[in-house]
Amino acid sequence: MMTTVEEIRRDVVLGNHILAGEGVLDVFGHVSARHPDRPDRFFLSRSTSPAQVSDETLLEFDLDGKVVAGEGHPYLERFIHSEIYKARPDVGSVVHHHAPSIMPFAATGTPLRPIYHLGAVIGPEVPFWDSQDEFGDTSMLVFNPEMGASLARTLGKGNTALLKRHGAICVGETVPRSVFISACMRDNGELQANAMAMGDPDFLSAGEVEKSNKVNGWGRPLERAWEHYCRVYG
Amino acid sequence: MMTTVEEIRRDVVLGNHILAGEGVLDVFGHVSARHPDRPDRFFLSRSTSPAQVSDETLLEFDLDGKVVAGEGHPYLERFIHSEIYKARPDVGSVVHHHAPSIMPFAATGTPLRPIYHLGAVIGPEVPFWDSQDEFGDTSMLVFNPEMGASLARTLGKGNTALLKRHGAICVGETVPRSVFISACMRDNGELQANAMAMGDPDFLSAGEVEKSNKVNGWGRPLERAWEHYCRVYG
Amino acid sequence: MMTTVEEIRRDVVLGNHILAGEGVLDVFGHVSARHPDRPDRFFLSRSTSPAQVSDETLLEFDLDGKVVAGEGHPYLERFIHSEIYKARPDVGSVVHHHAPSIMPFAATGTPLRPIYHLGAVIGPEVPFWDSQDEFGDTSMLVFNPEMGASLARTLGKGNTALLKRHGAICVGETVPRSVFISACMRDNGELQANAMAMGDPDFLSAGEVEKSNKVNGWGRPLERAWEHYCRVYG
Amino acid sequence: MMTTVEEIRRDVVLGNHILAGEGVLDVFGHVSARHPDRPDRFFLSRSTSPAQVSDETLLEFDLDGKVVAGEGHPYLERFIHSEIYKARPDVGSVVHHHAPSIMPFAATGTPLRPIYHLGAVIGPEVPFWDSQDEFGDTSMLVFNPEMGASLARTLGKGNTALLKRHGAICVGETVPRSVFISACMRDNGELQANAMAMGDPDFLSAGEVEKSNKVNGWGRPLERAWEHYCRVYG
Repeated sequence: MMTTVEEIRRDVVLGNHILAGEGVLDVFGHVSARHPDRPDRFFLSRSTSPAQVSDETLLEFDLDGKVVAGEGHPYLERFIHSEIYKARPDVGSVVHHHAPSIMPFAATGTPLRPIYHLGAVIGPEVPFWDSQDEFGDTSMLVFNPEMGASLARTLGKGNTALLKRHGAICVGETVPRSVFISACMRDNGELQANAMAMGDPDFLSAGEVEKSNKVNGWGRPLERAWEHYCRVYG
Repeated sequence: MMTTVEEIRRDVVLGNHILAGEGVLDVFGHVSARHPDRPDRFFLSRSTSPAQVSDETLLEFDLDGKVVAGEGHPYLERFIHSEIYKARPDVGSVVHHHAPSIMPFAATGTPLRPIYHLGAVIGPEVPFWDSQDEFGDTSMLVFNPEMGASLARTLGKGNTALLKRHGAICVGETVPRSVFISACMRDNGELQANAMAMGDPDFLSAGEVEKSNKVNGWGRPLERAWEHYCRVYG
Repeated sequence: MMTTVEEIRRDVVLGNHILAGEGVLDVFGHVSARHPDRPDRFFLSRSTSPAQVSDETLLEFDLDGKVVAGEGHPYLERFIHSEIYKARPDVGSVVHHHAPSIMPFAATGTPLRPIYHLGAVIGPEVPFWDSQDEFGDTSMLVFNPEMGASLARTLGKGNTALLKRHGAICVGETVPRSVFISACMRDNGELQANAMAMGDPDFLSAGEVEKSNKVNGWGRPLERAWEHYCRVYG
Repeated sequence: MMTTVEEIRRDVVLGNHILAGEGVLDVFGHVSARHPDRPDRFFLSRSTSPAQVSDETLLEFDLDGKVVAGEGHPYLERFIHSEIYKARPDVGSVVHHHAPSIMPFAATGTPLRPIYHLGAVIGPEVPFWDSQDEFGDTSMLVFNPEMGASLARTLGKGNTALLKRHGAICVGETVPRSVFISACMRDNGELQANAMAMGDPDFLSAGEVEKSNKVNGWGRPLERAWEHYCRVYG
């Protein structure tokens, strides 16, 4: 199935609107996608809130985070995207968000782990990246390639990472995947926090994570979610 | 009072829309109803989000979970419905949901019990079903008749059950009943979690559960709820 | 300032819509007002959800809870209203609600006390009524004059009371007052629960309750609230 | 960049609507701005809910809190604004709010501190003002110049202060700044409460607060927030 530039750009716009509508993004955060024909390029909006993203606000970047097409102020944190696309050829879409439910994990370092069947898509346990470790006191934004590369190393081969005192990233093969993983991460964060307040949760077993991940984040369940989101927010 | 196929199908559509509107269902979960003339058949949508269910998306199933009328991908979890209809001739409608408020109970195994007058409709205490017990590591979905039958055994003669690390089911004589029980289960979950965080709750006595259940989930209170929901979401 | 029957009936309709819009009422609960010319009569809707109340749904009752004008099923709990109007000549409006934030107090017996300036309108501490004490196991509804009279005794000269495992009542001289007190009770419940989860709250001093109550629930603050609610929900 | 009276008045109206839309303000609370040409004057609505503020409801005040133009009942708490403008020549806009997330801090005295990158705009730690300390039992409102001046002393050179058992104030050079700081204070309160419930949060280091504050509450991030809010609520 060939994907055109038009389709990918439309997905980036939709992805921003969907995650804004779902409360995963607010004034800040962003969704990007890799260029379908040139793996060394990606699409990301110029600086604006996710709800205001449109085809007109999209910029095209190279993997050094330099604008190669489009006009306007780029996000300071474009290096999150450029360095993940550089390190992970399998990734087609990157989300950076500050969903309220995952922020207490980002603040306390509490391990975020799958606590319900759909939570399996975040991976067995979400790694933490702390800008303090390599960069000391900063503005806490990922504002240069070195910081982006460091974050990409923490992400490793996984789908998600938490940024201490800051937020999270989610990656997927496509925009529907990165959006779905972001929504499930938000839900898993809320459920886990509430379950930990109530008692001692049973997390998914390693086997359940593996098997659930193969079924629940692909095929009809994933299509169903994307169709639903596009109808509601498209 | 005779009920026609058209009325039952309309109730299934309404039930999905109502519980989506009330936040009991989101992208996932489903409401079904038994065929009014053929107790060995039931109506359940093809795979789509509850908000997108319409008369056109409904399929007709037999009690083996096979599609006998309609087109499209059936839900993987149709066996929840088929096996409950098989085991419980008194049940006319089944809801499978993942209401956020009941998920911490599903994660921790904390008993969910009636904590306010309307909570009585969930029954004295909600039983737990864990797919691990009979089936080990799975994708956690109820994807075959054996799993559905096992879940139906846990449900027994009650109105509700919790699926460990997954969600819940609610059943009723009619769609208005299963929808009402689902909404009250959601509220009871929220209230109980908040009450346990505050102190040591007084649950309803056995006599209060019995007497409240006879009054609050039937007649005018039930009609009032269904009328309200149909006006708001119909 | 004379108040006409038309104005009072309009206020009852507005009060129901406002508290439904504010989430203090949902499918259940009700707002009533005393007849302006006949203190032995009051207006309360027939059985319907607060959002569906209109001038057409209003019934007129005497203080025995008997319908004297209008048609339709009365609420089972009309005796909450009739007995409070009988016991409290100063009361012009009664609200019965199950606002989620006050339910944990109703479940645990935790004292609900003013924790911010507007909270003073609930009174220094909210008394508890438990249907078990005088009536044993019941359906938990206030379904006869004896139960209503018992509840009115617990209310005493105050503005508010909590019904164990059930909900709350709020009373005022007028509908705007009972509605305002209900909204502030809801907020106080939320704030107090969150503050107790965080640490050891400073409640208002007795002098602060008295002085705040004289200023914040009357005059311009009260008018401002009613004007706002009527614009948003009217 | 010259700012006209018309622009400032429009910003005051927008600021009220934005913070009402964001749930920082409800029926109560207010946003004001200093007159662009006369630093001894400021604009603040007459007594009405923030959502109802319009150019027609704005009054012009001097720094004694006296109305010099416009008609209608002024807010009792206008002295919060007049005394801060008197004490802080750098401040161009003042917000007084009771955002639910900060109220538990106001009730318990728990220090509110930056817990995520944008939280840096509230300052390293938010000071507390208690009306009891200098004024004893009151209605808890800031209803005269002496109370306003006392509160301004607690604010000092900072951006924010908490009023025990009452609410908060936020100040900025412009309306977009005071609105942005108010929204970030609300989010920081929610995140900190949730993080403290989960474990032992890592707060921002002093260096992170300083560096983050220089980047995140100015320039494009601030413009982006204001543009977003104006599109959504304008």
